[in-house]
Amino acid sequence: MTTLREITHDDVLALAIGAGVLGTGGGGNTYLGRLRLERELNIQGHPCPVISADDVPDDALVCAVGTMGAPTVGVEKIMAGHEVALAVRALEKHLRQDMFAIVIGEIGGSNAIGPIVSALQLGLPVVDGDPMGRAFPELQMDTFMIYGVSPIPMALADSHENVVIFEHIQSALQAEAYARSLTIEMGGSAALVMPVMTGRDMKAAIIRDTLSLAIDIGKTVLHARETHIDPAQAIAEHTGGAVLFRGKIVDVERRTVKGFARGNMTLVGFGDGDDVMEIDFQNENLIARHNGEVVCTVPDLITIVDSEDGEPIGTESLRYGLRVAVLAMPAPDELKTPQALAVVGPSAFGYDDVIFKPLIATHS
Amino acid sequence: MTTLREITHDDVLALAIGAGVLGTGGGGNTYLGRLRLERELNIQGHPCPVISADDVPDDALVCAVGTMGAPTVGVEKIMAGHEVALAVRALEKHLRQDMFAIVIGEIGGSNAIGPIVSALQLGLPVVDGDPMGRAFPELQMDTFMIYGVSPIPMALADSHENVVIFEHIQSALQAEAYARSLTIEMGGSAALVMPVMTGRDMKAAIIRDTLSLAIDIGKTVLHARETHIDPAQAIAEHTGGAVLFRGKIVDVERRTVKGFARGNMTLVGFGDGDDVMEIDFQNENLIARHNGEVVCTVPDLITIVDSEDGEPIGTESLRYGLRVAVLAMPAPDELKTPQALAVVGPSAFGYDDVIFKPLIATHS
Repeated sequence: MTTLREITHDDVLALAIGAGVLGTGGGGNTYLGRLRLERELNIQGHPCPVISADDVPDDALVCAVGTMGAPTVGVEKIMAGHEVALAVRALEKHLRQDMFAIVIGEIGGSNAIGPIVSALQLGLPVVDGDPMGRAFPELQMDTFMIYGVSPIPMALADSHENVVIFEHIQSALQAEAYARSLTIEMGGSAALVMPVMTGRDMKAAIIRDTLSLAIDIGKTVLHARETHIDPAQAIAEHTGGAVLFRGKIVDVERRTVKGFARGNMTLVGFGDGDDVMEIDFQNENLIARHNGEVVCTVPDLITIVDSEDGEPIGTESLRYGLRVAVLAMPAPDELKTPQALAVVGPSAFGYDDVIFKPLIATHS
Repeated sequence: MTTLREITHDDVLALAIGAGVLGTGGGGNTYLGRLRLERELNIQGHPCPVISADDVPDDALVCAVGTMGAPTVGVEKIMAGHEVALAVRALEKHLRQDMFAIVIGEIGGSNAIGPIVSALQLGLPVVDGDPMGRAFPELQMDTFMIYGVSPIPMALADSHENVVIFEHIQSALQAEAYARSLTIEMGGSAALVMPVMTGRDMKAAIIRDTLSLAIDIGKTVLHARETHIDPAQAIAEHTGGAVLFRGKIVDVERRTVKGFARGNMTLVGFGDGDDVMEIDFQNENLIARHNGEVVCTVPDLITIVDSEDGEPIGTESLRYGLRVAVLAMPAPDELKTPQALAVVGPSAFGYDDVIFKPLIATHS
């Protein structure tokens, strides 16, 4: 097993910035995650090893981990810190097999950082990859579920050390409903371990190298800041994306629909007040329209960054007057198959009249 | 292992009547349970063996089973039929140990019958006893919880074959809250397996011989009907209880408070219109007052039966004009310790000003 790279103190800030960029406005605030990871690196006294997906043997067991619940709750009801590790150990005992490595459940936002803390606690390496390549709001919106990995057994744990194992659940949608209900009873946020899978199944569905991508995006931003080059343009070049728009936020509208923060924002160009971009979001940014014409849609990534320092801006932090750049980045190929688009394309978010036209990468 | 007795077709009606008497107005309607047990006896082609609690070895594993959820839902949303068996098998696999026997979670009402269906499906004997000796509304109100048996691991299963294992839960009250929440998401009723315990722990806390008692009470009623003797008096003599009152229901008041059917009824004597009994209930009958004076309280049993045929009447079936007898029966000793009264005495139901004065058995 080759260790690809290690996560050290030097990577933490870069990972937080890069996970924010890949979070496309969602995935949760990274600030608490950064503090937790820095503390855990101090406690353990060594970095977290990162391995390639292809270094996991076919018959070894791995599990994806993350948190379930509203990010707004997650910031106020801080986790005890070892919930994920407890749930992983309970599943190991249930299945009578040890885990070989930890998989990040979602590379966007705070969910990219928590799994590394858990891997350090468990003494396990973390796999370089995830099943979203970005952030999405629901359990079934990941490549493990899309490409047929079983959601069970899965486990939820809360800050009182309560651990619940879902031993048999008929569908990913039912898993989502039962886990959501129990999460609410657990106080609004809970640690989630799902799915447990063999190395073979993981390798068939994971989006590779997204942890490295997040760190590299963050380092690109930090380097741009130091050398006074344009951070948004640097991110676009690194990711094969493009800067769609530069301007000022002049309007933000939010409403809560079925438990999601749906809304939209309007931006006007720095040079030309008639040049307008509108972006719809549902936790994550979904659809960008430039002077009325759709120019980028989910699953491609739409991220708002501060125009000066390239800091990614979550949908919860949008406000009048922010001067920003709008980035568009091509989604991983795994999210653009017909099978995937049925689950994560515009129609899955209620945009039945919007056709997904994939961005063409400016380089690869 | 000695088989005490067997449950055959001849026992089903008697068990249903006796479980209704011990249900003290709650525990759920026994009609569907009777049909299910008769069908299962036909399918299996043999009776269900009943063993004494003392025939279970100390280190063998047993589990109490039942259903969770509102009885009103249970009647309309009929179980698929093998939910309990699925949950038991899942716990056996989780613990890597087979069950030795099934324990009835509650001897009152329909919950007395379902576990025998499950035992037949699992090919296991059922233990003669239960942890309530009657019906109670909540999980923590049983002698296993009162005398310190751990509630975990426990399992819930629904009619879609979904099985959830509670691997670690901090308290019986938290188990009640989490299981209640998941039961609601499961559609309002679910199979419950809780607790799993050793023969040693079971024998230290179970109330013995209550399955035999239920069948014998039912047979007493059936015999009274055939021989035209008074069924209420026959039950009182068999159980060491007393007929508190005979009269007509003249008023029933029900209101739903915190998910329970709270209410009270007023009866007037057949001979004397000034002779009044009032009974408060919360799913089960709790407090009986005769001309204003408290004459019987929970945990002692207060059961309303039809004055003619001795058929027990659930709180959901109370109505103006019914001609009834009110039975009082002494609770098992296990429910009358200070430890138990804190959980199942009048104050546990909000009657802080009512002191429990145990009935004296008329014979034993």
